[in-house]
Amino acid sequence: MKKALILLGCPESPSQTPLAVYVTYKLTQMGFDVTLASTPSAMKLLEVSDPDGHYIKNKIDIESCLDTLNQGDYQLLIGFAHKDAAVSYFVTFYYILNTKSIALVFHRDAEMLDAFQETIKDNTDAEIVAARAYHNPTPIRVRLDRALKQLEED
Amino acid sequence: MKKALILLGCPESPSQTPLAVYVTYKLTQMGFDVTLASTPSAMKLLEVSDPDGHYIKNKIDIESCLDTLNQGDYQLLIGFAHKDAAVSYFVTFYYILNTKSIALVFHRDAEMLDAFQETIKDNTDAEIVAARAYHNPTPIRVRLDRALKQLEED
Repeated sequence: MKKALILLGCPESPSQTPLAVYVTYKLTQMGFDVTLASTPSAMKLLEVSDPDGHYIKNKIDIESCLDTLNQGDYQLLIGFAHKDAAVSYFVTFYYILNTKSIALVFHRDAEMLDAFQETIKDNTDAEIVAARAYHNPTPIRVRLDRALKQLEED
Repeated sequence: MKKALILLGCPESPSQTPLAVYVTYKLTQMGFDVTLASTPSAMKLLEVSDPDGHYIKNKIDIESCLDTLNQGDYQLLIGFAHKDAAVSYFVTFYYILNTKSIALVFHRDAEMLDAFQETIKDNTDAEIVAARAYHNPTPIRVRLDRALKQLEED
């Protein structure tokens, strides 16, 4: 079974937890076994968000995940990259896994949005799904749907 | 069947959407038919957060809900009250429904938290479940679980 790893950043964005559930749902439908790697606070939000475990099957602490990670462990990497720390994690995981990778970049501030995209472009060949967004998950969801559709067709 | 109405405020808090799913799940387990009333942006986050509709069955725009609301329509009111507008909605719905009501008050700023609690205390006899919280949903979830357990025992 194909395995996908989703990286969550700091949970400050109100869109992150809902979108994390959404991405997990879509990838599961596409036949991926999905694992979410996150900090403890982002994980607590995930647990409250899916109290009956319908969507989230595998969760792991992001640092523990990194400690034991090897190329080949996952065939797809998707990372939320809306903070410096999250962007750094994404780049690190990208180099270890060396596989198809998508960065979800969203921020309410246009300059920050550009800066995060530039960092990812300068350091990886990952696909970037970006939108200036904070409360409203729709712009990033629509672009993500398009990227996942493309992935299915490849 | 007993009916519960959950009011959502502005979706700025990263805890609101996860906690809204959680409260819906708990009340459904307790035998309530649950409706969530919210602004359009908060509703979009709910939809992304429960893409397969496992938790959220009934959603309504908060203004449309208010237009047609009558006493007796719901036997329980739970309101997220972490903004002035949300507190005002809660007080308004409280007076129309005139039934058992719980306000969920959380904020990262202690003064704001106190101010919202004072407003609700001064204007209603609603039960208040409060915690200084922003990223971390656990303090409010634990207090909410206690309030719901009390409700079941009453």
